[in-house]
Amino acid sequence: MAKQNAHFYPVILAGGRGTRFWPLSRKRRAKQLLALNGKRTMIQQTVDRLRPLAREKQFWIITNEDLKVEIGRQLPNLARRQTVAEPAGRNTAPAIGLAAFILLRHDPAAVIGMFPSDHVVADDKGFRTVLQRAVDLAALGENIVVLGVQPTRPETGYGYIETGERTQKDLFRVRRFTEKPNRQRAEEFLASGRYFWNSGMFLWRADTLARALREHLSETAPYLEQIAAAFGTRKFEATFRRLYPKCENISVDYAVLEPRSAKGEHASNLFCLPVNVGWNDLGSWAALYEYSARTKQNGAENVIRGANSFTLDAEGNYVHAPGKFVATVGVSNLVVVETDDALLVTTREQAQDVGKVVKYLDEKKMTKLV
Amino acid sequence: MAKQNAHFYPVILAGGRGTRFWPLSRKRRAKQLLALNGKRTMIQQTVDRLRPLAREKQFWIITNEDLKVEIGRQLPNLARRQTVAEPAGRNTAPAIGLAAFILLRHDPAAVIGMFPSDHVVADDKGFRTVLQRAVDLAALGENIVVLGVQPTRPETGYGYIETGERTQKDLFRVRRFTEKPNRQRAEEFLASGRYFWNSGMFLWRADTLARALREHLSETAPYLEQIAAAFGTRKFEATFRRLYPKCENISVDYAVLEPRSAKGEHASNLFCLPVNVGWNDLGSWAALYEYSARTKQNGAENVIRGANSFTLDAEGNYVHAPGKFVATVGVSNLVVVETDDALLVTTREQAQDVGKVVKYLDEKKMTKLV
Repeated sequence: MAKQNAHFYPVILAGGRGTRFWPLSRKRRAKQLLALNGKRTMIQQTVDRLRPLAREKQFWIITNEDLKVEIGRQLPNLARRQTVAEPAGRNTAPAIGLAAFILLRHDPAAVIGMFPSDHVVADDKGFRTVLQRAVDLAALGENIVVLGVQPTRPETGYGYIETGERTQKDLFRVRRFTEKPNRQRAEEFLASGRYFWNSGMFLWRADTLARALREHLSETAPYLEQIAAAFGTRKFEATFRRLYPKCENISVDYAVLEPRSAKGEHASNLFCLPVNVGWNDLGSWAALYEYSARTKQNGAENVIRGANSFTLDAEGNYVHAPGKFVATVGVSNLVVVETDDALLVTTREQAQDVGKVVKYLDEKKMTKLV
Repeated sequence: MAKQNAHFYPVILAGGRGTRFWPLSRKRRAKQLLALNGKRTMIQQTVDRLRPLAREKQFWIITNEDLKVEIGRQLPNLARRQTVAEPAGRNTAPAIGLAAFILLRHDPAAVIGMFPSDHVVADDKGFRTVLQRAVDLAALGENIVVLGVQPTRPETGYGYIETGERTQKDLFRVRRFTEKPNRQRAEEFLASGRYFWNSGMFLWRADTLARALREHLSETAPYLEQIAAAFGTRKFEATFRRLYPKCENISVDYAVLEPRSAKGEHASNLFCLPVNVGWNDLGSWAALYEYSARTKQNGAENVIRGANSFTLDAEGNYVHAPGKFVATVGVSNLVVVETDDALLVTTREQAQDVGKVVKYLDEKKMTKLV
């Protein structure tokens, strides 16, 4: 039975653009705001998944001005102040750091969980069981806990966590974080059994994170503290707008976690807790196809989001055409996505290149389409 | 300089359904009513092409009830009585036969030209030059003239005309009409130089055709004569509805021309006049792609009917998505067509199977989609 932790604050990072889901994703309708794998959007699913572990008023959303209004619409139970819109994107370290400094002023025992807003988990209940353990471990003091996903393939698109000593059942010390490997390294990682995918989900006490930021981002931390001090006052917007862009544009992994693991002396408090709960970052239309096809009964079939469909000599296709009758004849492994103003035709293999379409549209200043 | 022939009556057959252009073509918006290769629809282009050779009041359109209203809209200069809607489809022999019997009552010197409504011709002027010669030949008396297209490939989808003696410059006697050949036969036809594609365009005097029908369709001809006698009276609709469905369902080629050529004794009045004017029957989305790509400058490229487009590692695709931005990434030789209610994804190679989608929709009684 899940419990609502009085000091656990889920901080959901929702400032990404998710261009690889173009033409469905747009600047004001980023991936996390789309219902890609069901009726609820990715960010709604993220909140739904975490809600049994924390009261709604403990949630924080970090996003940008383009997305703030739509997020408010999708999460009507959160108060307006729980959604912070960055005046400029500065990656995860300033975002989560600001949350830490704000929370610390109100709850010295705060435990922060950092969560992407655009991933899916098949086994929500199993996920919460592991997460509750992570919250408890982080609450103990200096511990930093990262959720690691058991790799199932030599994926070259993710960062990996190398683990060392196993200190408890399914709890490992972190030796180091690694960048995306090449294919050969990824295969070695998979074979060794000591590597986990970096899920981007971290847990710390707010004071632990604040201390780490003061140590490793000594120029940025004071800006964040000043912004946090203004939070809830009339000065906040102006202070935020003035100081936040001065913060270093850096990920929390790179700013805080990697130096710690590399140095070694601090490594003792970095832990990896594996999660085997059907995690998927849905990084592209191809990933969405695989996720959708996997969860259906009849194998590697077509995934058709339409009113109705007819298929002849066609397999492995992903077609998104809501409300339309979709006929696929003699085609395989395609991705076809249509919206009111755009049509994408690509292959599952090349679906990661969809970002290049958005780049083109950006360059051509075809702003209505991005 | 083209002249308007006082006795030349173009009869345009516009009752076909053209299911291979689904989802653009529908029961009430058949292929001939679509603007597939320009701004004018196929039937508008057909009339435009012939207009220099005959006054508008000399045109006849044979169609069905589903298409009659839209044809009236597309050809506003034709009087309502010039469009005849068959109460039941009975192929070309009864259709052109009825036209012959009607015309004969008003103009004993009438020369009828039978024309499909859904083909294209690149060189309209060249076409008219040949056609004027055909009109003149047909007007002479018993002659039946068929326009033959010089084959450019061993096409197995067309009927062929085997020619015999060359009687004048570019005028041949017809030896026989053949059904669609297999590949080997088609290659032999192409190599021999004596075969032409049957364009479906025929010319006769109305009295010649009437005589042939009385001879070869002795049961059907009296029905047609009765219907023709009622034309222009209040009895016409009822008579038409009662008798036309009793007519034999047969093509004019099969009913009149093939028996004549096979018998031999009548062969002397059957002539083939070659036309080399960029004729194309646009039989499928693939044919439309080839026609459209051929008429553009830069080779075997993508043909995109959209508001705008972006292409990466993509070639040989036909995409129809009017008003939309179309992105093709890493795909080749596809056909993608979208309408308000449907999306077709197929290959140029398998585009001829699109009719099977319509068959499925017919069977499922999804009437809005057909």
